[in-house]
Amino acid sequence: MSATEERRARMVLSLISEPGDPRFTDLAHELGGARLLEAIRTDPERHQLLLAASARLEELDLDAELARAERCGARFVVPGDDEWPRQLDDLHGAAPLNERGGVPIGLWVRGPLRLDALARSVAIVGARSATTYGAEVASDIAAEVGLAGIPVVSGAAFGIDYAAHRGALGAGAPTVAVLACGPDRAYPVAHRPLLDHLAQEHAIVSDAPPGAAPTRIRFLSRNRLIAALTRGTVVVEAAVRSGSLTTMNWAERLSRVTMGVPGPVGSAASAGVHQALRGGAALVTSGADVLELIGSSGEHLKADQRAPARPRDRLSVHDRQVLDAVPVLSGAPVESIARVAGLSVLTVQPALARLRRSGLVDRAPRGWHLTDAARGDVDDGSTSHVQRQEVPTIDR
Amino acid sequence: MSATEERRARMVLSLISEPGDPRFTDLAHELGGARLLEAIRTDPERHQLLLAASARLEELDLDAELARAERCGARFVVPGDDEWPRQLDDLHGAAPLNERGGVPIGLWVRGPLRLDALARSVAIVGARSATTYGAEVASDIAAEVGLAGIPVVSGAAFGIDYAAHRGALGAGAPTVAVLACGPDRAYPVAHRPLLDHLAQEHAIVSDAPPGAAPTRIRFLSRNRLIAALTRGTVVVEAAVRSGSLTTMNWAERLSRVTMGVPGPVGSAASAGVHQALRGGAALVTSGADVLELIGSSGEHLKADQRAPARPRDRLSVHDRQVLDAVPVLSGAPVESIARVAGLSVLTVQPALARLRRSGLVDRAPRGWHLTDAARGDVDDGSTSHVQRQEVPTIDR
Repeated sequence: MSATEERRARMVLSLISEPGDPRFTDLAHELGGARLLEAIRTDPERHQLLLAASARLEELDLDAELARAERCGARFVVPGDDEWPRQLDDLHGAAPLNERGGVPIGLWVRGPLRLDALARSVAIVGARSATTYGAEVASDIAAEVGLAGIPVVSGAAFGIDYAAHRGALGAGAPTVAVLACGPDRAYPVAHRPLLDHLAQEHAIVSDAPPGAAPTRIRFLSRNRLIAALTRGTVVVEAAVRSGSLTTMNWAERLSRVTMGVPGPVGSAASAGVHQALRGGAALVTSGADVLELIGSSGEHLKADQRAPARPRDRLSVHDRQVLDAVPVLSGAPVESIARVAGLSVLTVQPALARLRRSGLVDRAPRGWHLTDAARGDVDDGSTSHVQRQEVPTIDR
Repeated sequence: MSATEERRARMVLSLISEPGDPRFTDLAHELGGARLLEAIRTDPERHQLLLAASARLEELDLDAELARAERCGARFVVPGDDEWPRQLDDLHGAAPLNERGGVPIGLWVRGPLRLDALARSVAIVGARSATTYGAEVASDIAAEVGLAGIPVVSGAAFGIDYAAHRGALGAGAPTVAVLACGPDRAYPVAHRPLLDHLAQEHAIVSDAPPGAAPTRIRFLSRNRLIAALTRGTVVVEAAVRSGSLTTMNWAERLSRVTMGVPGPVGSAASAGVHQALRGGAALVTSGADVLELIGSSGEHLKADQRAPARPRDRLSVHDRQVLDAVPVLSGAPVESIARVAGLSVLTVQPALARLRRSGLVDRAPRGWHLTDAARGDVDDGSTSHVQRQEVPTIDR
């Protein structure tokens, strides 16, 4: 069986079967396209599935379909092609979800971006009913990830998907849309301009052939491809029943990295993500977080987020002990400070002089006390709230 | 050694030592208060620590201090008292943090709420520079937790602490403030009305004696008590260096439940919480989540958050398969739908009739199609965005 024969057979199979039907994809994976097609032609009574396919085969106008594909510039990519994204082969071992599964028989693709460029790519998906917060974060993450040379994969849906594609495009980075309908159709219709652009400059992918309409079940099939094509899936916003959580389920099933972006806890748009985070998805707050998780061999390791150094950090251990023993508000004599610090007056006195030169303490009639600069360090930057008070006490 | 002697000895020790100094607390735990005080009196040269304490003992005006305590209505609670919160004993095995640690020598308490009522309590802490989002969530969580009969413990600081106390009070629930200064002092000064109310109706607690001023190191000592007194600590907002993260560190060290409330990822006030969540703290979005985590024996188990049932949920498996095969936008003949669904026309025809009676599909010249009601189910409620389109195609 030649490569051309295999490709053609798979093309026919794709035109006469429901995408992602695991019975079909499994058979195609086992027998190969040519042999499966042969079985459908010659011995369909063996199985109801083959019988149904046989009936469709009879109605198939292959030339018309090939012409349709050519008109929209779609190519058909099959296992064995250089371009074939081999990460999809992981679908073979994975159990079906929502009655969809298996390695696609082939992929219909429009656009110059080759699918083997998706070896290190990231999916960014989420709610159609996204908030402005979610859209902005999706766009930012997509831009940052894209700038690092990682293609962004999504579903071209309203809301988060759209923001992700736009974020990548705005950063001049590659982005790919995986559709539930044929690669020649625009769904949603309002995104035709985006999809036309992707078909021109990047890529549109589907396991449904040109002309195929979107149906609910085809969205389920599509979501598995988004998860399987990528190293990890980021869900930016998702209500409790969001379809994007299906994509995350697939990612988990395929041992991809699952990531979620939290949001305000009262937001219904974040409720599904929070559930996913509780269930084990990694919490990400930025493109840098995503890159760190999907990177390999130490690439993209993010420096620990640390606050900038404070004056207190630059003190010796001894002087820090002294500073920590100075009352926050009121004043105290050096003996009292020495006592609280557990140090001798002999060493505390010059320490206070040093701290005074550093602007961290000062001496008033009521005793040694912290300056405003030092007070900000005591606990959580309460500087602006502290009121000076003349308290006539001897502090312990 | 009588209980009275032990209490008195510990009271003296509390007045002459720095709260939370692990060398002191460990000695007191080992020898008991009376024997440690005896050692300080008779043989202080044994250790620099005892020597320093001996010097302070000489300056101590015990009668004046007892009078001060009486004036502010403070009582001193020690290990062995009925009221002693035994969960604090966990501090004995835990390593010190920031040079503070160990079981307190005793606790100074004002207010009618007994400390043994804190056996099942929750700490709610966070940034002083809280946002309105954080303050609102802290208040809501405190109210919900409080309504379930769980006392709320916090530090009376600006921001999250204050919101937590107020949330509990607003729900008529018990709340306790643990202070870094003596229980007779107001810090911050602006919270004197709150603290007066707590001293009157609930409780104020400190391991620092009446008259003690707040110092940075005493905040560190205080934070360990907040974590140790409670079953779990919730951090609502925290910048990267927030002191409330110290409280969470202690909670982890003591095997308490650590919980964090996420927020917008661009918010500096949530950055510390997000780090903590990545580090293993549990993500909570509500008081119900908190109750579920700190509950025991199946109490407070929260029902899985599910979206309300949809029309599709009530269909038979067969009818659902048919519905899922109807094109989202365009129309299709029954044979096409049957093919996509992988079912026979004989069963699909009556199914469509049922779906039509349920208002989920309708038939037009272009074929069977979803109604608006059903379209909302396809993927993430995109109903409002779908545009009807007369597409003259035969759908697969």
